[in-house]
Amino acid sequence: MSTVETTITTMAQAAREAANQLVRVSSDQKNTALLSIAAGLEEEAVFIKAENSKDLVGAKEQGLSAAMIDRLTVKNETITAMVSGLSDVVGLNDPVGTMGPTWIRPNGLQVARMRIPLGVIGIIYESRPNVTVDAAGLCLKAGNAVILRGGSEAFYSNQALAQIIHRALENTELPQTSVQVVAVREREAVLALLTQEEFVDLIIPRGGEGLIRFVVQNSKIPVLKHYKGVCHVYIDDDADFEMAQEICFNAKVQRPGVCNAMETLLVHQTAAEEFLPKMAQRFAEAGVEIRGCDTTCRIVPDAKKAQESDWPAEYLDLILAIKVVQDMDEAISHTAKYSSRHTEAIVTRNYDRARRFVREVDSSVVLVNASTRFNDGGQLGLGAEIGISTSKLHAFGPMGLEELTTTKFVVQGSGQIRE
Amino acid sequence: MSTVETTITTMAQAAREAANQLVRVSSDQKNTALLSIAAGLEEEAVFIKAENSKDLVGAKEQGLSAAMIDRLTVKNETITAMVSGLSDVVGLNDPVGTMGPTWIRPNGLQVARMRIPLGVIGIIYESRPNVTVDAAGLCLKAGNAVILRGGSEAFYSNQALAQIIHRALENTELPQTSVQVVAVREREAVLALLTQEEFVDLIIPRGGEGLIRFVVQNSKIPVLKHYKGVCHVYIDDDADFEMAQEICFNAKVQRPGVCNAMETLLVHQTAAEEFLPKMAQRFAEAGVEIRGCDTTCRIVPDAKKAQESDWPAEYLDLILAIKVVQDMDEAISHTAKYSSRHTEAIVTRNYDRARRFVREVDSSVVLVNASTRFNDGGQLGLGAEIGISTSKLHAFGPMGLEELTTTKFVVQGSGQIRE
Repeated sequence: MSTVETTITTMAQAAREAANQLVRVSSDQKNTALLSIAAGLEEEAVFIKAENSKDLVGAKEQGLSAAMIDRLTVKNETITAMVSGLSDVVGLNDPVGTMGPTWIRPNGLQVARMRIPLGVIGIIYESRPNVTVDAAGLCLKAGNAVILRGGSEAFYSNQALAQIIHRALENTELPQTSVQVVAVREREAVLALLTQEEFVDLIIPRGGEGLIRFVVQNSKIPVLKHYKGVCHVYIDDDADFEMAQEICFNAKVQRPGVCNAMETLLVHQTAAEEFLPKMAQRFAEAGVEIRGCDTTCRIVPDAKKAQESDWPAEYLDLILAIKVVQDMDEAISHTAKYSSRHTEAIVTRNYDRARRFVREVDSSVVLVNASTRFNDGGQLGLGAEIGISTSKLHAFGPMGLEELTTTKFVVQGSGQIRE
Repeated sequence: MSTVETTITTMAQAAREAANQLVRVSSDQKNTALLSIAAGLEEEAVFIKAENSKDLVGAKEQGLSAAMIDRLTVKNETITAMVSGLSDVVGLNDPVGTMGPTWIRPNGLQVARMRIPLGVIGIIYESRPNVTVDAAGLCLKAGNAVILRGGSEAFYSNQALAQIIHRALENTELPQTSVQVVAVREREAVLALLTQEEFVDLIIPRGGEGLIRFVVQNSKIPVLKHYKGVCHVYIDDDADFEMAQEICFNAKVQRPGVCNAMETLLVHQTAAEEFLPKMAQRFAEAGVEIRGCDTTCRIVPDAKKAQESDWPAEYLDLILAIKVVQDMDEAISHTAKYSSRHTEAIVTRNYDRARRFVREVDSSVVLVNASTRFNDGGQLGLGAEIGISTSKLHAFGPMGLEELTTTKFVVQGSGQIRE
C-alpha cells in the first residue's frame, strides 16, 4: 500500500467508526454541532478569506479561467450563504429514526420500516469551497460520516473550513472523524477513496462531466450522479401560447449555464406557425442562437440548420435546438432517444395529453405548464439539495436529506417462530 | 465484438425498447399475461418435465451433487408452485403510476413522486428453474423488461419455460422481448450482460457467494445482493427464557441451510448460567454442534472451543457459535464487527433495551422477540420476494414489487417560471 492509500484507508476506517457513533446521537446534538460550525464560520471569516487568497494566488499562477476563479473565491457573501445554508438544515426535520406505516401480520408480528443513515458518504468535488460546508452539514444532519475531497485548487480554503468544522465537532462532543477533509493533493487520493467499499457506502461526485465519468469508471462503491441535463420542453398544439413563451424563455434564458436549463424545444406542427415566429423574436432579442430542423428554418429564417449532433447537445449557453414534431408521440420518442433523463416539460391545456406525458416520459422530473428550472431540491421543497441523480437506483431526481438515508425493517413480536 | 457480445447487446437493446412499451401497459394487461403464463405452465407440464430430464441426465453425467440435482429437478409440485406464485403476483397491487403525498409550493406548484418501473433488469442465477418464472412474473408486474441468465446446468428447462412465457406474451400482445432468456451456455454471456450499462438498469444475482462475488466484481451496472447471512440473536438478562429458547431453536434448527438462520448466539452474562444449560441440551438433542467462548465452554461442557474464524462464519448447517457477553453494548459491538448486516434479533422484556437495539443495530431486518427466520418478503407481508439486499442503496432487506420500481417527481403548474 502506498502512503496515500494508507492515509485514505485510515480515514475511511475512522469514518466507519464515527458512523457507528452517530447512530446514537440525538437531533438536538446534531443541530447544535451545525450551529457551532456556523458560528465558527462567522468568527473566522478573516482567517477563511486569508487562506482562500492563497488558493487564488495559485489559481492565477496556474492560469485558471475567470469562471473557475470566480467559483473558487470566498467572499463575505459566500460565508453568509454557508451560514444561512447550515441554519436552513437545522430547521429541517431529522429523518433518522422516523418510521413509515406499520402493518400487522396474521401471526401478530408488527412490521415497519425505520429510516436510518446510509453510513459513510464520500463527496468528490471541484473548486467551490462552499460545498465543503454544505455537504458536511447535510450528511451530518442525516447521521452520516462524510469524507470530503475537494479540488487541489481549493486546498487551503478547504483545510481552513475543515479546522472550523473540527473545532465545532469537538465543542459539541461529536467524533471529529464524522467530517474529514482529505489533505492530499494528488489525484491518487480520489482513486484510493473509490476503492474503500468496505467502509464507504456511497460516493457523490459534483463537478464537470469529466470528473464524474472518472469517478464512475473507477469506483467500486455505488455512485449517485448525473452526467448532464439535456432538457426538453414540448409545446402542444393545445397550449396557451403566451404561457408557453414565458416558460420557454425562462427555461432557456434565466440561467443558461445550469443543468436544468432547456436545451431542445419541441413544437407541435399545428402550433409552429403561430408560436415560433414570436418566440424566435423574443429569443433573438436575448441573443439566443437557434439551430432548427427544416420546418423551423422555414418558419424562422434566421435559424441555423441543426445537425444530428445538436439533438443530444448540452449547450449550457444561449443556444437552443428546435424541432417541429408531428404530434406528442414524436415528442416523447425524440425525448426517449436524446434526453439525459434529467428534466422534461410539456405545455398544454389538454387533460389526456398532460396525463400521458407525465406517465410516459422517463425523466427524473416531469413538469406540466412550468419551467424546467424548477428541478432543484430547494425549489421542489426538499429543503436542501446534495445533488441531482439521473440514475434510477436509490434516488432519481433532486436529492435532499431523505436521500442521504435508507430504511431497515423493524419487526416487533411476542415470541413468534416460523412454522 | 464477439458473437456472444453481439447476441447479448442485441438482447439488451431489445429489452430497453420493450421497457419503453411496458410503461404504457395497464395492470389488467400485465395480469392477463401472468395468468396466461400460468395456464401455459399447466398445459405444458409434460413438455417441461421432458426438457428438464435432459438437464438431469447432463447433471448426473457431470457428477453434480445430490443437493444440486434436487434443486434442478422440476416435479409436478414445482410447476404447481410456479403457477400459484404467479397468481399471488396477480393479486398484488400494481405499484406503477401510484403517487405518494402531494405538496404545494408557495408559488402554487403541485409536487409529488410517482412510482415508475426501473426499466431493464438482469437476473443471474443458478440451478433452480423456477426462478425463471418467479423473476419474470415479478419484473413484468412492476413494468420492467427482464433478461434472465440461468445456469448452464438448467439450459433445456429454462428454454422450455422461455417458450411458454413467449407464447403467453404473444397471446396478450405484450412485446416478446419483455422477457428474454439467454440461450448462450458460455460464461462469457454473463460478462457481456454485466457491461450493458447503456440498456440495463439493475442486476440481481441469486446463488452462492462465488457467483455473487463474480457478478459484483465484473458489473458496470448497479447490483443488489447479499453475500451471506451471519445472523445473531442476543438474549438479554431480562428475557423470557422460555420464549428465548423457542426463538433460538427455531432460528437455528427449523431450516439451517438458509441465509436467515441464526449463526451466532449472544447471551448476557447474568442470563448464561440459567439459560445456556437447558438451551444446550435442546440443541444437543437436535444434533447441533456448539462452538463457544470460554464461559460457554465452562457452562456447557460438551461445547467445542470457538476460534476467531467462528465469529464471522456462515455455517448454513447444524453448527452454532455462542458467546457470553457482559451487556447489550458488547452484543451490539460484536454484531457491528461480525454480522453481515442481514438479520439480528433481541429477546428481552426491557423497554429501553428493545428500543436501543432496534435503533442501533445496523442490519436490514432487526427483530424484537421473534425468530430471525422471518427475514423473508413473504413472511413480512411484501407479497413476494425477488431477493434480499444487504447493500444500503435503493433497498435494504427483502425486496418485493416496490423495490423493482423507483420514483420520479411530477410537477404540475399553471405557468410558473423561476424568478
